[in-house]
Amino acid sequence: MEARHRVGALFTDLYELTMAAGYWAHGLYDRATFSVFIRGGGTRRDYFVAVGLEDVVTELEAFSFLPEEIAFLETTGRFSSGFLDYLGGLRFTGDMVAMAEGTVFFADEPILEITAPLIEAQILETFILNTLGFQTMIATKAARCIKAAGGRPLIDFSLRRTQGTDAGMKVARSTWIAGFDATSNVLAGKQYGLPLSGTMAHSFVTAFDTEMEAFSAYAQTFPESTVLLIDTYDVIQGARNAVTVAQALRNGGNALVGVRLDSGDMASQSINVRRILDQGGFPEVKIFASSGFDEFKIADVIDRGARIDAFGVGTKVGVSSDAPFLNIVYKLVRYAGRNVRKTSPGKATLGGEKQVFRQLDKGGAFVGDIVGTRHEHHEGAESMLTPVMVNGSPVGARPRLSEIRARFQTQISMLGHEHARLDGPVRYPIRISEGLNAVQPL
Amino acid sequence: MEARHRVGALFTDLYELTMAAGYWAHGLYDRATFSVFIRGGGTRRDYFVAVGLEDVVTELEAFSFLPEEIAFLETTGRFSSGFLDYLGGLRFTGDMVAMAEGTVFFADEPILEITAPLIEAQILETFILNTLGFQTMIATKAARCIKAAGGRPLIDFSLRRTQGTDAGMKVARSTWIAGFDATSNVLAGKQYGLPLSGTMAHSFVTAFDTEMEAFSAYAQTFPESTVLLIDTYDVIQGARNAVTVAQALRNGGNALVGVRLDSGDMASQSINVRRILDQGGFPEVKIFASSGFDEFKIADVIDRGARIDAFGVGTKVGVSSDAPFLNIVYKLVRYAGRNVRKTSPGKATLGGEKQVFRQLDKGGAFVGDIVGTRHEHHEGAESMLTPVMVNGSPVGARPRLSEIRARFQTQISMLGHEHARLDGPVRYPIRISEGLNAVQPL
Repeated sequence: MEARHRVGALFTDLYELTMAAGYWAHGLYDRATFSVFIRGGGTRRDYFVAVGLEDVVTELEAFSFLPEEIAFLETTGRFSSGFLDYLGGLRFTGDMVAMAEGTVFFADEPILEITAPLIEAQILETFILNTLGFQTMIATKAARCIKAAGGRPLIDFSLRRTQGTDAGMKVARSTWIAGFDATSNVLAGKQYGLPLSGTMAHSFVTAFDTEMEAFSAYAQTFPESTVLLIDTYDVIQGARNAVTVAQALRNGGNALVGVRLDSGDMASQSINVRRILDQGGFPEVKIFASSGFDEFKIADVIDRGARIDAFGVGTKVGVSSDAPFLNIVYKLVRYAGRNVRKTSPGKATLGGEKQVFRQLDKGGAFVGDIVGTRHEHHEGAESMLTPVMVNGSPVGARPRLSEIRARFQTQISMLGHEHARLDGPVRYPIRISEGLNAVQPL
Repeated sequence: MEARHRVGALFTDLYELTMAAGYWAHGLYDRATFSVFIRGGGTRRDYFVAVGLEDVVTELEAFSFLPEEIAFLETTGRFSSGFLDYLGGLRFTGDMVAMAEGTVFFADEPILEITAPLIEAQILETFILNTLGFQTMIATKAARCIKAAGGRPLIDFSLRRTQGTDAGMKVARSTWIAGFDATSNVLAGKQYGLPLSGTMAHSFVTAFDTEMEAFSAYAQTFPESTVLLIDTYDVIQGARNAVTVAQALRNGGNALVGVRLDSGDMASQSINVRRILDQGGFPEVKIFASSGFDEFKIADVIDRGARIDAFGVGTKVGVSSDAPFLNIVYKLVRYAGRNVRKTSPGKATLGGEKQVFRQLDKGGAFVGDIVGTRHEHHEGAESMLTPVMVNGSPVGARPRLSEIRARFQTQISMLGHEHARLDGPVRYPIRISEGLNAVQPL
């Protein structure tokens, strides 16, 4: 977890390897293009935030089967020794175009295309979908929370309920890209250089004989950064105790930073607590709130007049609870110079290498996207897929996390609010170019 | 990923460490008991399958802060050097009781309790909740699918859409414990010794000029284990092509194992395909189905007469899509010989060390559970929490995965069907003992 571990070539579905064996046995070595996109039918999201590319590039750069991995495959009894020898020498030698991390995009637009010898490209499917899909899903959910919070800071509190340890790390990074202010995840603070946030849980309060003792002890230890959790027993009394502690801190030349609410009706409680703090002479003490927040609950409590200054956002964002997976797919669109597509009901795909052209107005705002063939031209439009790997090696500068975060902030500011609001957004205009529509399987 | 990596002491929420600093500064070194349970309010599950303990024991056995981790904490400027020195020497020295992996349990019952010096126990909260919560959630979802499938084999196909790479590994292990037959996850096959399954995707079919060529090529490469994906273009024609391939295999002394459907209406398609296979002289060729299956869709297609022999179960189980998190919590229930509890609205907890007593009938079937204090006695009842660590070291044999899987099969067979069925199950009887109800904060 600490350093970036190799996920490894065996992180794949068996069928990728059985297909590869079939290709190998029948001489299908030509170059193939696979296209990654999110199917639009039934999605609960109006836009997406591309995240995960850095992990993909890092893994592909070092892609190979280790001897012990080949040895394991041999034990399955499924593969010929000739094929296993071939796998042992396999590296990623292909080209990749992709949308930069932090890019806003839409369903049914390719966000990454790989062109490589068929077997190389086939085997990578599982890893690429897992890596891009999850992080894009989380960044998208987080972006919605940022919208709902209207400028109030958000903090990632999800670590205890993410789906595994890797998810916990990726949620911290993805929510940061979307604009969160900090995370509670200490390891993510170390690994990604993110600001950390956190003070106390109910267990701290209950470990002391009284709430007042717990509050005083914490304030003594962290006189410059105390936030008191005030709802362990009775929130009104908790707020009064916080005023007492705030006075003691002030007498010592410090200041109470805030109080936190973690249960009950957040709108009415925050209004009551705000009154107690103000009447106690502490209008500058902030109110933090946590417990089940996502974009919907944030919007609801703000709508009901909550006096909340910042939100701790946990579980529901960390698993994208209202939409916990994306219909992200990896489809063969071209093989050996031949455009291919399939026609399964509800799962049809268009053939050919593609490009996404984004049309901008004079101020840079997004007007609409055109999904076209890779090499067509649209005057004044930005080409959203750019080369990130050529002949198996990364090209261009790898953006730093701060640059990715800044890119998203620019991107979302260029997407009209009418396309991004939570209630009844206007559908962002996307069209298929005439050139792409004319592509037929050859 | 390959070997088991240390998750590490920094995989924690910052507040665990700030609380620890507060405890340290105020001399709160006494033994504390924390209790792990799933809050019952609003849960969409009627029973749960305990999974994840092995990972917890492995991590706690080796728990420590590495020098580079202490160095990172120092850079945050939040902690005194005295406290950081203390952390550098910290190990887990406590006791742990828990339900064995594979145990069936219910909401509001403790599944693990740790008794250790307060700081040790506090810091472990985040890791333990993350580890037990996710795997228990997935095993529980998988167990529901097994029920719905009525004996038809299930295969884990989730890897591409799990929430990160660690989740993909844990899903393979958890679904296997619940009774799945195999996984597509090659790395899980290596790491856990699980049977692997998988044949071809649509890309294989489209990489060849025609479906028939693709089918023939696959059958030549894997004459003993061919399953043909027949819905890339037209499922009826695909089934007819499968009959042709089945005949060729038979002529060569082999047999087509099956066909797979991955789109469209599974009930009607499977009936049509069954007829084509039967009329073609291949009643033994199996029909596999994948695409969006979970317990609800499995039950639905079986109810509508589907002729499906086995299911590939992916995304919806891999993320537990209808309930993608558990309200699993880690609560201080005793400190320094004093039972503690909190009274937050909707989040109240009972104090004291606990035990779960399961009452059995003469055949061993579960009659009802009693949640009591740790040391009370209930004649003939089984104590579900047993010691797994004493003074920081594991005690007793660590069960093998096959034993865990067998334990679950026994457990679920002892839970009356009326408590486990998908539609309107009868609530399993659980009561709080008089002794536990009488526990008051001292």
